[in-house]
Amino acid sequence: MAETYIIPTLTLERGGTLRHAPVAYRTWGTLNDAGTNALLVCHALTGDPDVDTWWGGMFGPGRILDPTAHYIVACNVLGSPYGSASPLTTVPATGHAYGAAFPSLTIRDTVAAHKHVLDHLGVQHIDLVIGGSMGGMQALEWSFYGAYVNALAVMAVGGRHSAWCIGWSEAQRQAIFADAKWNDGVYDPADPPRQGLAAARMMAMLSYRSAQEFDQRFGRDKQPGTAALFAAESYLQYQGQKLVDRFDANCYVALTRQMDTHDVARGRGEYHSVLANITQPTFIVGIDTDVLYPLHEQRELAAHLPNSHLHVVESPYGHDGFLIEQTAINNALLAWHQPYSTLAARPVNA
Amino acid sequence: MAETYIIPTLTLERGGTLRHAPVAYRTWGTLNDAGTNALLVCHALTGDPDVDTWWGGMFGPGRILDPTAHYIVACNVLGSPYGSASPLTTVPATGHAYGAAFPSLTIRDTVAAHKHVLDHLGVQHIDLVIGGSMGGMQALEWSFYGAYVNALAVMAVGGRHSAWCIGWSEAQRQAIFADAKWNDGVYDPADPPRQGLAAARMMAMLSYRSAQEFDQRFGRDKQPGTAALFAAESYLQYQGQKLVDRFDANCYVALTRQMDTHDVARGRGEYHSVLANITQPTFIVGIDTDVLYPLHEQRELAAHLPNSHLHVVESPYGHDGFLIEQTAINNALLAWHQPYSTLAARPVNA
Repeated sequence: MAETYIIPTLTLERGGTLRHAPVAYRTWGTLNDAGTNALLVCHALTGDPDVDTWWGGMFGPGRILDPTAHYIVACNVLGSPYGSASPLTTVPATGHAYGAAFPSLTIRDTVAAHKHVLDHLGVQHIDLVIGGSMGGMQALEWSFYGAYVNALAVMAVGGRHSAWCIGWSEAQRQAIFADAKWNDGVYDPADPPRQGLAAARMMAMLSYRSAQEFDQRFGRDKQPGTAALFAAESYLQYQGQKLVDRFDANCYVALTRQMDTHDVARGRGEYHSVLANITQPTFIVGIDTDVLYPLHEQRELAAHLPNSHLHVVESPYGHDGFLIEQTAINNALLAWHQPYSTLAARPVNA
Repeated sequence: MAETYIIPTLTLERGGTLRHAPVAYRTWGTLNDAGTNALLVCHALTGDPDVDTWWGGMFGPGRILDPTAHYIVACNVLGSPYGSASPLTTVPATGHAYGAAFPSLTIRDTVAAHKHVLDHLGVQHIDLVIGGSMGGMQALEWSFYGAYVNALAVMAVGGRHSAWCIGWSEAQRQAIFADAKWNDGVYDPADPPRQGLAAARMMAMLSYRSAQEFDQRFGRDKQPGTAALFAAESYLQYQGQKLVDRFDANCYVALTRQMDTHDVARGRGEYHSVLANITQPTFIVGIDTDVLYPLHEQRELAAHLPNSHLHVVESPYGHDGFLIEQTAINNALLAWHQPYSTLAARPVNA
């Protein structure tokens, strides 16, 4: 189960503060005496700190996420309904949840909040920070903590949220806003804008997969016994309902807006020059069928990060390849990381 | 201005009939005495018969749509708000509009309706039928009218609506359904589900363009003076509102469902064998960045249509390339069509 650390005061990038801000986190393994064997895992939009489940194929002895070697930490992002400060969190001063009044946050705010957790845990040095999609945004931001971070693994993302991705975010938000129950984010938690959130998720699922996978998996198959004509429709409807059962619309809007802020160059200089300042050894994973963060974004990172290696995963699964192609990613990442790790060499059971 | 032909009784593929079904159409040029110089243009989802505007760069003397050579006909698809039978049409028996009760139609129903118009006009033979996207679906269906159709130009589409495309359709419909004003399609025409339809259009716009175009056009530009943070959001919001001002939600749902029925093989045999029976000379256009109907769909058509030629247009505009890259398509199509035309050779002012 996740633990929670309460940050007394978190100063936000865009001004203002979050008071008594919870951050939910999990850890595995043991921090060494020097506090230097941490491995930080950053999760994506609707993810959570349970990396041993969603990255289970990369987790365990001999794998990249090895609790016998590293002290593994995973923190829930700000804005998420899984325990960190979010629209669902009670405002200390009022006793009511933030709801739509939750402040506008950036990826850097999430990373700053997680730094509080690592400080609380006594982590002096991160050996490797690893994340895909929104998790990759956080990993890139961690690079600006300098020598505190030894190496990065960044998957299925770019150095700044593209117009394309912003467009996807906004179309999804508009589907939520179209639900009358949205009411500018002021809704009864027992009667939330379910249909709008489901439609947003259905759209997102298209961006997470690929034409190839959809066509191979569903073709023009019918879906007998359901309201959906086609299996592809039924699948999307199911995915929409599944998210509605586990997520909150205000959180979804807050998190997509947080992703839209992603830009490593904001306030730091010219984009390519800023990328050139990310000097940590960086393993970059791109999926050849990624619709949302196409391969050219990872190629751009690889071209400008001076100490990087691009690994292209061939997969029909599109963006979700970073969650699905675990064996391929684990093996490539292990082989790459070995010479860069600040830990003593450890046996690898590939 | 469009004219209207009323079909007394149109028998529908899925059973039932449409009585007194209007079809809006436009013509340019003069039908020859033999009735054999027709060129039929088929429009796409939210299009209309005004091909001289939306394909203006392909229209005029010396171009592929040349009213001095051909008798050009364009008919509005069934289900569309631009004058053909649709949810907006008054049911003769009740005096009220069909609304959500408009029957479930197929691409073949639209083509059959347009055949009534051509018969009414005295067309004995179509020299060329040309269409992209939903228009390409109609063009492929016209091939099954055998010797009545001489040649086809089919753009940015496949031989059957893929699971991927069905998924896009359904996510858009669900955005409309999430709008409380949708009310299962029973709404006041003065107070329709505008927000849901706008969100659907915003999703659709993503599928019509490409990551490349969005990123080059908008990057991370802000949009000062608007509620949108980013220019990409503002653009999509504008596109959503523009469609809401000219379209109807029931029509949008009906038309996307009609597109989902697209399958040249339905009831005709095994898919590839059916494609092999499309023996008319066929010019196939694919756009290399088409997200919705990716190039592999046009390659598949080209591989199985025995008398076909694939022309790949390199364009950043994605699916909308078939509407935007008019000069490239016009020139390639003219050069291809010359030897196949049943008309006497005509001067080409390229």
